Amino acid sequence: MEFEEKTLSKEVIFDGVLVHLERLEVSLPNGGTSVREIIRHPGAVAMIPFTKDGKMVLVRQFRKPLDRTVVEIPAGKLEATDEDPLEAAKRELEEETHYQAAKWEAIVTMYPTPAYLDEKFTIYLAEELSLVENPLPQDEDEFVEVLECTYEEALALQASGEICDAKTLYALLYWQLRMKEQG
Amino acid sequence: MEFEEKTLSKEVIFDGVLVHLERLEVSLPNGGTSVREIIRHPGAVAMIPFTKDGKMVLVRQFRKPLDRTVVEIPAGKLEATDEDPLEAAKRELEEETHYQAAKWEAIVTMYPTPAYLDEKFTIYLAEELSLVENPLPQDEDEFVEVLECTYEEALALQASGEICDAKTLYALLYWQLRMKEQG
Repeated sequence: MEFEEKTLSKEVIFDGVLVHLERLEVSLPNGGTSVREIIRHPGAVAMIPFTKDGKMVLVRQFRKPLDRTVVEIPAGKLEATDEDPLEAAKRELEEETHYQAAKWEAIVTMYPTPAYLDEKFTIYLAEELSLVENPLPQDEDEFVEVLECTYEEALALQASGEICDAKTLYALLYWQLRMKEQG
Repeated sequence: MEFEEKTLSKEVIFDGVLVHLERLEVSLPNGGTSVREIIRHPGAVAMIPFTKDGKMVLVRQFRKPLDRTVVEIPAGKLEATDEDPLEAAKRELEEETHYQAAKWEAIVTMYPTPAYLDEKFTIYLAEELSLVENPLPQDEDEFVEVLECTYEEALALQASGEICDAKTLYALLYWQLRMKEQG
C-alpha cells in the first residue's frame, strides 16, 4: 500500500512566538488532493526526576489553553531544533525545580500529536538529585510551584484532574511499572 | 501562590479545517503581560482494541507533519465539542478498523500538549471485538492499513520508530502492566 502524501504547495500562515503554522496542499494516494494544516515546533524535553527518598518532582503552573493550573513533570522546549536534548533537559530541570541530577537516562521519545503537529520530545529519567545553590533563573513569564509527591499523592492529583497531560500520565504508568519490577 | 493569567485581548489568527489558532494577551501574576498562542480543537477519542486472541489492533497511516507513516492505536476527533465521546469511539473504531466492540471501558482522559493546545482525548479499552459486515466508510482523505499485533510485534514497531506517538506509547505501557497484573 502506497501512503505518501506529496507536498504540492506550502503557505506560511502564522509565525508566532511559539506557534508556526503552515498550510500545505498535498496529493493523496488515490490521486486526489487535500489540505494539511501543520504546526511546526523545535522539539522539547521532559524529565521524570526522583528524589533520593523516592518522590517524584512535579511542577504546578497555569496553562492558559485549559484556563487552570496543571501539575506536570518538568519540561521545556529546545532553544533550537539542533540543541542537544540532554543539555536542554539539564537546563530546564534546574530552571524549573532548582535541582540537578547526577544520573540521566533517556527513556522514550514521542510525538504528542502527530496528526497536525511536528513536535517531538524526549523523556529523561533524572536521579541522584541535589539542590543547586544559585540556580538558573526561570523564564520571566513562567510561574512554577515545585511539588515532591509520593506515588499515592500523584494518584490523588490525577484523580482530582490536576495531573492530566500525556507525558505526566505516561510518567505515572512508568512509575507503577518500576515499582512492580523493583518488587 | 496566585497563578491565574487573565485574558486582556483575543485575536483569531486562523480558522482552518482542523486548526483554529488564537493569540491572547494575558496578565501575569507579577503584574506584567505576555502573549499566549493557543490552538483550539474539538477533542478526540482513541481506542485500545484487543482481539479475542489478545492482539492489539493498530492502524498505519501517513502523517504529513512527520512526512512518514506512523502506527497508532485507532483514534479520531469529535464531530463537535459536545459529541458523546463513547459514540465517537464506536464510530471511529468501525470506520478505521471495521471492528465493533461489545465491551467498552474509559481508561483515561488526557491533554497531549497543554502548553499551547486545548485538545483533550479519552482512551477507551475496546474488547470482545467482531468484524462489521458493512462497515462505515472511512473519511475520503484517510488511507489506513489495519494491523493486529502481539506485544512483541508492537515492541518491534516501537524499536523501529514507527510506533512513536504519545497515546500509542501509553497504550503499550498499559498493555505491559495489564500482562503483569494478569500474571
